Amino acid sequence: RHFSNVRTVTLIPGDGIGPEISAAVQKIFSTAQVPINWEEVDVTPVKGPDGKFGIPPAAIDSVNRHGIGLKGPLMTPVGKGHRSLNLAIRKEFNLYANVRPCRSVEGYETLYRDVDVVTIRENTEGEYSGIEHEIVDGVVQSIKLITEQASRRVAEYAFKYARDNGRSKVTAVHKANIMRMSDGLFLCCCRDAAERNPDIRFEEKYLDTVCLNMVQDPSQYDVLVMPNLYGDILSDLCAGLVGGLGLTPSGNIGEGGAVFESVHGTAPDIAGEDKANPTALLLSAVMMLRYMDLQSHATVIEQACFDTIREGNYRTGDLGGKAKCSEFTDEICKKIEESN
Amino acid sequence: RHFSNVRTVTLIPGDGIGPEISAAVQKIFSTAQVPINWEEVDVTPVKGPDGKFGIPPAAIDSVNRHGIGLKGPLMTPVGKGHRSLNLAIRKEFNLYANVRPCRSVEGYETLYRDVDVVTIRENTEGEYSGIEHEIVDGVVQSIKLITEQASRRVAEYAFKYARDNGRSKVTAVHKANIMRMSDGLFLCCCRDAAERNPDIRFEEKYLDTVCLNMVQDPSQYDVLVMPNLYGDILSDLCAGLVGGLGLTPSGNIGEGGAVFESVHGTAPDIAGEDKANPTALLLSAVMMLRYMDLQSHATVIEQACFDTIREGNYRTGDLGGKAKCSEFTDEICKKIEESN
Ligand SMILES: CC(C)[C@H](C(=O)O)[C@@H](O)C(=O)O
Ligand SMILES: CC(C)[C@H](C(=O)O)[C@@H](O)C(=O)O
Repeated sequence: RHFSNVRTVTLIPGDGIGPEISAAVQKIFSTAQVPINWEEVDVTPVKGPDGKFGIPPAAIDSVNRHGIGLKGPLMTPVGKGHRSLNLAIRKEFNLYANVRPCRSVEGYETLYRDVDVVTIRENTEGEYSGIEHEIVDGVVQSIKLITEQASRRVAEYAFKYARDNGRSKVTAVHKANIMRMSDGLFLCCCRDAAERNPDIRFEEKYLDTVCLNMVQDPSQYDVLVMPNLYGDILSDLCAGLVGGLGLTPSGNIGEGGAVFESVHGTAPDIAGEDKANPTALLLSAVMMLRYMDLQSHATVIEQACFDTIREGNYRTGDLGGKAKCSEFTDEICKKIEESN
Repeated sequence: RHFSNVRTVTLIPGDGIGPEISAAVQKIFSTAQVPINWEEVDVTPVKGPDGKFGIPPAAIDSVNRHGIGLKGPLMTPVGKGHRSLNLAIRKEFNLYANVRPCRSVEGYETLYRDVDVVTIRENTEGEYSGIEHEIVDGVVQSIKLITEQASRRVAEYAFKYARDNGRSKVTAVHKANIMRMSDGLFLCCCRDAAERNPDIRFEEKYLDTVCLNMVQDPSQYDVLVMPNLYGDILSDLCAGLVGGLGLTPSGNIGEGGAVFESVHGTAPDIAGEDKANPTALLLSAVMMLRYMDLQSHATVIEQACFDTIREGNYRTGDLGGKAKCSEFTDEICKKIEESN
């Protein structure tokens, strides 16, 4: 293992169960002697000069300096002038591709076996543009914004991801039969990327068809790329196939950096009770290690996590077990130490 | 049974397998002595005064006169100036609610048991407004249009449907955390309808959450109401749970009439080969009979169809059997005759 080049990672522990599961990841990382330092930042929204609440400058600055972050779930404050902080982070750092691998977890049974798909979601525009108007009383429009630049970027990323991860097919998911111009543009960009990446197979499917196929036979899909909202929907559907958001990692990739996050909620009902499952955040942190080229650390940690779940004696409540978050974490640490 | 008040129904056989499955339905209906006449119309698009292709006036006139139609799948012609005919019909007759019940078919095994959900989809606006612009080169916007009028109407319909069909809960499906104004308006209208219908339980859920839950445990849902695109997605997902679009009916309900249709494709690869499964169109026709208050005919036909599938000797190829469309149809007719 490498102890040189210790890099600093911004840690946003998050709300609710965020601090517990972040502490679990930190403990596991230190047991595995991962050569990184954590810089923990507070993202409690502050009022900016424009009167709107946003991410505090110190937190933005930290991510900008280090170019890499790990974040737990954030609550969206109630009330006007607040938008989702989870989204604000994606936008602030222009994290254009949201990557969510969904794989069956060995030993944890669901209705599906051997699921192994990756959704790649355009992460900056589309239905998430935030542009809405009331035209007249009772008539509202929301604007779905699709640009060639963002579409090309995420399409190209999907093919690169497929190649780097030894995957063979990219499916573009769209409703260009309905949104001919916007999804049509997205689809054109995917076709162009497919031409530039002839080593990876390419196909196009309607979103509704993909949803139908996915619940019948997920094995027909591999890497899927799509506009923002479709990715939100399809990634949750896929997570459902393998056991839910407590088991699936997520990475937001930008030009100059990336933020990895668990996408489950803050679970206020069990916060502080040492009951939460840190797996989604841990696997997101493992994605981060691979992104940082710390492959061997990634493999050791991932293996220990999957072994612990598979053996079944230290599962948290959400997986039908009785273990506390700390017991699950300790078991992973034990396995990492044994593997040394 | 009633032989008085014979009503006429417009029949749009459709393309590809459409004519075969329509003939199957007609045969079954005549065996069951359903007191309706069919008026078959051709919907091959004709060029209108504005140069655009559309439904021929004679077909429009037929549906308008009878207020009720049954339609098979229609191909969307390739080329500019053509929009989906399936959609054109929904818009032309202002068929504001698309109702798609998804129930497990006894004896036909999928990963799920006892699925029984109904998606009710706003059918006239939303992401299907057709309003799109290229703002500058490479920047496209599509407009999602939500009106209070259409939202109220479909929300109210969902509660009425729930009551009329002995169902206990309506779930409004939305992304009002992202599209605050448009989905927000839709959601408000659902809340208002819930207040006016206190005998039916009401809940609100994010679309992504519903997709995740649906693949894990569909039994938690009952009737679901949502904007247009979400209904397109979720209804296909639900159909996937019970065996696909070949088994699920659909009805488009308007103020003064309704058009029932199978929503699978035209299956050009098997068209004309007597291999198609007419179940989706037949069950849509059964929905139509209930709508026309021909309950006893509906029950007899539905029962014969489900019995035939359950017994398993006359299944078509899509259901793993070897029967021809005509053999499956004849078996249903035999059962109907026996039940007399
Ligand atoms: C929290 C919410 C705003 C977010 C989204 O809609 O993208 C979530 O569902 C996700 O998938 O990350
Ligand atoms: C054929 C297509 C335009 C249609 C839609 O998108 O609504 C279909 O998928 C449906 O669900 O009826």
